[in-house]
Amino acid sequence: MKFILKWFKSRSSNEDGTFYSTLKDILGFKPKDIDIYHIAFTHRSMGKYDEEGNPISFERLEFLGDAILSSVISAYLYKEMPTKNEGYLTQMRSKIVSRNTLNDIGLQIGLKNLIKSKIPDKQFSPTLLGDSIESLLGAIYLDRGYPYAEKFVMTKIVETYVDLDKLENKISSYKSFIIEYCQKARKEVSFIMSEDKSHSKNNLFSIKLVIDGTTISKGRATSKKKAEEQAAKRAYYSIQSKIKKKK
Amino acid sequence: MKFILKWFKSRSSNEDGTFYSTLKDILGFKPKDIDIYHIAFTHRSMGKYDEEGNPISFERLEFLGDAILSSVISAYLYKEMPTKNEGYLTQMRSKIVSRNTLNDIGLQIGLKNLIKSKIPDKQFSPTLLGDSIESLLGAIYLDRGYPYAEKFVMTKIVETYVDLDKLENKISSYKSFIIEYCQKARKEVSFIMSEDKSHSKNNLFSIKLVIDGTTISKGRATSKKKAEEQAAKRAYYSIQSKIKKKK
Repeated sequence: MKFILKWFKSRSSNEDGTFYSTLKDILGFKPKDIDIYHIAFTHRSMGKYDEEGNPISFERLEFLGDAILSSVISAYLYKEMPTKNEGYLTQMRSKIVSRNTLNDIGLQIGLKNLIKSKIPDKQFSPTLLGDSIESLLGAIYLDRGYPYAEKFVMTKIVETYVDLDKLENKISSYKSFIIEYCQKARKEVSFIMSEDKSHSKNNLFSIKLVIDGTTISKGRATSKKKAEEQAAKRAYYSIQSKIKKKK
Repeated sequence: MKFILKWFKSRSSNEDGTFYSTLKDILGFKPKDIDIYHIAFTHRSMGKYDEEGNPISFERLEFLGDAILSSVISAYLYKEMPTKNEGYLTQMRSKIVSRNTLNDIGLQIGLKNLIKSKIPDKQFSPTLLGDSIESLLGAIYLDRGYPYAEKFVMTKIVETYVDLDKLENKISSYKSFIIEYCQKARKEVSFIMSEDKSHSKNNLFSIKLVIDGTTISKGRATSKKKAEEQAAKRAYYSIQSKIKKKK
């Protein structure tokens, strides 16, 4: 830990002052152990290591914060939706803590200015903002305990950005939707990788979505998961439009 | 909630007294809101519903307790293993909160006597014991707050039953082990469903584990997942014995 302190202290007091005041505004309370917040916003690309050779980066705090976020959101949903079953609560929780939702919230809270990385601006991934919410939560927990972390989630995330009514109608995974739809309708569904250019320069995956032997849609993207989701989204809209026509 | 109270109050005060004192011994503190603990141990098979037609059962509390358990264990591992990365912490957490571990702990804590179900003894699944730890934790959280839930996990579960050294060497999923092993050794691995009797009376799944085109082992079980795990376990032992022979 000595090395971490030394490294943090080597930065100018001006820089420290800005970090502290920006952080205080975001938190809504005074941080005590500022070093842990520095770690929460330090990306691996900074190439910093402690004396034992362990990288100094936000990822361990992200692991911790992810679990605390899930716990706070679970308690919130349990109380807020007293008549919904555990399956429904699980779905709602997934929607709230989804990467997309967290990335948006991280951007709006203004975490970008706090992140220390050597990633060029062009390559900056919004995922880093969602990750930072979680590592920040881990830091709050270690600095001030569970009640502070809980209060931060409730006031800064849930009350400001979470709209349960909207989320209830949101589809978080088109693939899951299509699989459930087919199970209910007793149709056979499969996602078939029709072409795999994963070893070429372009790294493209192509997926055919086949329902009861008929190809319904195709998806192509840089990962298998994304290509499946694209194919499923297209199938979703084609099913929706057929339902509308029948009405 | 009125109906729940009525139903709980209709039971004899003797029965209530036993439940209360057994529970108090297990918890190590006096429960305040006893009704929430009754729900934590009520299985769906009791066929109880509240006035709005929602089943009274432990499952919503299990959803809540599961998240709280994960949060407490994450903080414990974060502090206990300061040099391990987030991937390692995630693996260790999975081992601690695995169904098998929780079922064992539930049995040893003595939760079986508290569970109210209409499942015949022969069909009693140990999974219910693991589920009950989680629903109990959800109840503790609602009754007395996070610090009590945390203390319960630490004293009654972690300090009594969790041996990190042992867990570090434990393989929680043979399938994951085999996949990782093949990735490192640059071998191609596939799990092939060679026979699917899922529609017959016996409901059996057969899985062939093929590495670099050669069938290494087979597994057969009542679910695809179990059959894969069985095949992977057999492959694991066959790989281990080959390594020993080479030495």
